[in-house]
Amino acid sequence: MQVLSNATVAFMDDETAGYRLVERTSIAIEGDRIAWISAGADLPASYGNAPSRDLEGRLVTPGLIDCHTHIVYGGDRAREFEMRLEGAGYEEIARAGGGILSSVRNTREASEEELLALALPRVDTLLREGVTTLEIKSGYGLDIASELKMLRVARRIGELRPVHVVTTWLAAHALPPEFKDDRAGYIDQVVIAGMDQGHAQGLIDAVDGFCEGIAFSAEEMARIFDHARTLGLPVKLHAEQLSDLHGAAMAAEHGALSADHLEYLGADGIAAMAKAGTVAVLLPGAFYTLRETQYPPLQALRDAGVAIALATDSNPGTSPLTSILLTMNMGATLFRMTPAECLRGVTLNAARALGLADRGVIAPGARADLAIWNIKHPAELSYRIGFNPLHARIFGGQLV
Amino acid sequence: MQVLSNATVAFMDDETAGYRLVERTSIAIEGDRIAWISAGADLPASYGNAPSRDLEGRLVTPGLIDCHTHIVYGGDRAREFEMRLEGAGYEEIARAGGGILSSVRNTREASEEELLALALPRVDTLLREGVTTLEIKSGYGLDIASELKMLRVARRIGELRPVHVVTTWLAAHALPPEFKDDRAGYIDQVVIAGMDQGHAQGLIDAVDGFCEGIAFSAEEMARIFDHARTLGLPVKLHAEQLSDLHGAAMAAEHGALSADHLEYLGADGIAAMAKAGTVAVLLPGAFYTLRETQYPPLQALRDAGVAIALATDSNPGTSPLTSILLTMNMGATLFRMTPAECLRGVTLNAARALGLADRGVIAPGARADLAIWNIKHPAELSYRIGFNPLHARIFGGQLV
Ligand SMILES: [Zn+2]
Ligand SMILES: [Zn+2]
Repeated sequence: MQVLSNATVAFMDDETAGYRLVERTSIAIEGDRIAWISAGADLPASYGNAPSRDLEGRLVTPGLIDCHTHIVYGGDRAREFEMRLEGAGYEEIARAGGGILSSVRNTREASEEELLALALPRVDTLLREGVTTLEIKSGYGLDIASELKMLRVARRIGELRPVHVVTTWLAAHALPPEFKDDRAGYIDQVVIAGMDQGHAQGLIDAVDGFCEGIAFSAEEMARIFDHARTLGLPVKLHAEQLSDLHGAAMAAEHGALSADHLEYLGADGIAAMAKAGTVAVLLPGAFYTLRETQYPPLQALRDAGVAIALATDSNPGTSPLTSILLTMNMGATLFRMTPAECLRGVTLNAARALGLADRGVIAPGARADLAIWNIKHPAELSYRIGFNPLHARIFGGQLV
Repeated sequence: MQVLSNATVAFMDDETAGYRLVERTSIAIEGDRIAWISAGADLPASYGNAPSRDLEGRLVTPGLIDCHTHIVYGGDRAREFEMRLEGAGYEEIARAGGGILSSVRNTREASEEELLALALPRVDTLLREGVTTLEIKSGYGLDIASELKMLRVARRIGELRPVHVVTTWLAAHALPPEFKDDRAGYIDQVVIAGMDQGHAQGLIDAVDGFCEGIAFSAEEMARIFDHARTLGLPVKLHAEQLSDLHGAAMAAEHGALSADHLEYLGADGIAAMAKAGTVAVLLPGAFYTLRETQYPPLQALRDAGVAIALATDSNPGTSPLTSILLTMNMGATLFRMTPAECLRGVTLNAARALGLADRGVIAPGARADLAIWNIKHPAELSYRIGFNPLHARIFGGQLV
């Protein structure tokens, strides 16, 4: 048993939005769980013997959750970024070996150790900002061995660092060159066959896909999701980022945990997501990097009661972003989410997007994953740009 | 004498853009100056006795320069940011004490020690990203005592931290309530009289103003600049941010070091700046925060041969940004500057915007202000978002 006293706690447990911010609160931790909370009151005498840490009024939030990343990959695309700004066209960049297939090539060529060494500094940047749960997708291997290699690296990150890693099978991210004339073959022989193998090896927590004109259709994704269901794996979808293929509605009908991006989401998708309890994961880093002008339908999502999460989408092509705090600022600045919505989007609603019921709030019985901040008001987390006020992070009851 | 060996150096000394990137370079440092450089060659035997540090191929750039900040201020405006996102209008925020005058009130009320304690964590964030020279403006005091207090805090930052601070007198930032019906009185009794006092006390390195419909006219600023000239102080101007008042042209005719913001800059301003050698300081953090859609005339500035710098504009209202690396990414992503232009914008051209001829490049005789990075190619500095690859910072020859 240990007690954190004199905290200003943003409970994030109120279904009707807002932080539920309470000063002078004590939190008792037993093992890796929150045992007991005394909101707005001094510590009861019966807890007087437990070791206590005076937080001097600091803000305490649930540990932050980045529920959508592609943070494991080989190579980088800085030179491609530069070539584009120097005026190179799509063709020229492709000829120079750029684009998503350059990440695929570099990921296939890299060893597990190399991928791990490249990913850890990026992961560490997120942890320094209070992240305690991190989703990591495959999707730059596009063959079974390389996709499984990515997920093994993801699992090892969770062993080497004090962070809970959730893995997602995203073989349906792009069509690799060797299958360019055989879409069905790729889906059968790699996406579905690899899902079976990864599932048998305990490497897959959920199944995802990129539903877009340049990737897979809603019908193709439905086949993949049907197979995931036979394995008992939850599903989610990159949907409606560049056009409305009605992927979110299809995903919701498959009981998807989340549909992600959603700039072009229409009324049918919103209604289906509301009905199914599918979380809307907004990814402002990609919106910013691609200089999109089509905004996700925030007010319609609010009106329909769809839970909204925010994530970095950390990836080498369209969102080389490794800051969850900056993601919150972008959610507010670019999408006009309130700071309370932004914080809920990286705590409670991000937990829901991962199907995790035991975190993202500060409540008895929840995991003791906490972020302690050198600020008084949670609005500051979204307000500042490129500033990290983290004081300490608690992961599973341990100060890390 | 000390030697840094096996560096990949971005010299930034080529007038025709580009990094001039040379591998396997040694840099000899004598006191606070670069003494000697061996580009692309091993260390000559005659330097074999000097203590040498092997940089193992790491990228070395000039220390970064943030040439436009308002980083000293009282209070914060997180709640105002939140109220606006919750739907509050301008009036309601003003009634709740928000807006620039809330920063003025909080700055006037704060002691020098309090302002210093608030500013240092923000400054430290910049230093951790390789900043070695930092400009700091007054402008939230709007009375002589409070404006001078801000500049004393700026000077103390330069004493307490290994960074060179350049101070700017920006009393002409806004009209305080007590002068709201006496613009001329404010300019005479505060802006000009305070400039005399601050200059006599050695607190002012340059004079700035906010030339805009909501602030001061080009004619008012010209009077202030004429007075600065009598004191031998260089001038610069916040110009053409929200409308074209032809402030940049007026500033250039006064030999201004820089004109800053410039979204609405027209052909007359560009021509005058090119003729006078006035640097264009672009501030993408404010553009981003205000969700501007009017872009600064980048191509016309290039075509005219105007030097372009980038800065954070770190301030509590329109750019609560404390990351020079993110500023570079915004310069590339939002303004379409090339990564080489972005790096030049926070090194050589930022030095020019401050009238400093001895830094911003890696060259014999220049200050030994260097940033050492855990990357190979400088494009990565602009490409990544919210990631800091700094390995070490050298300030005046000292590893700090
Ligand atoms: Zn994604
Ligand atoms: Zn400014």
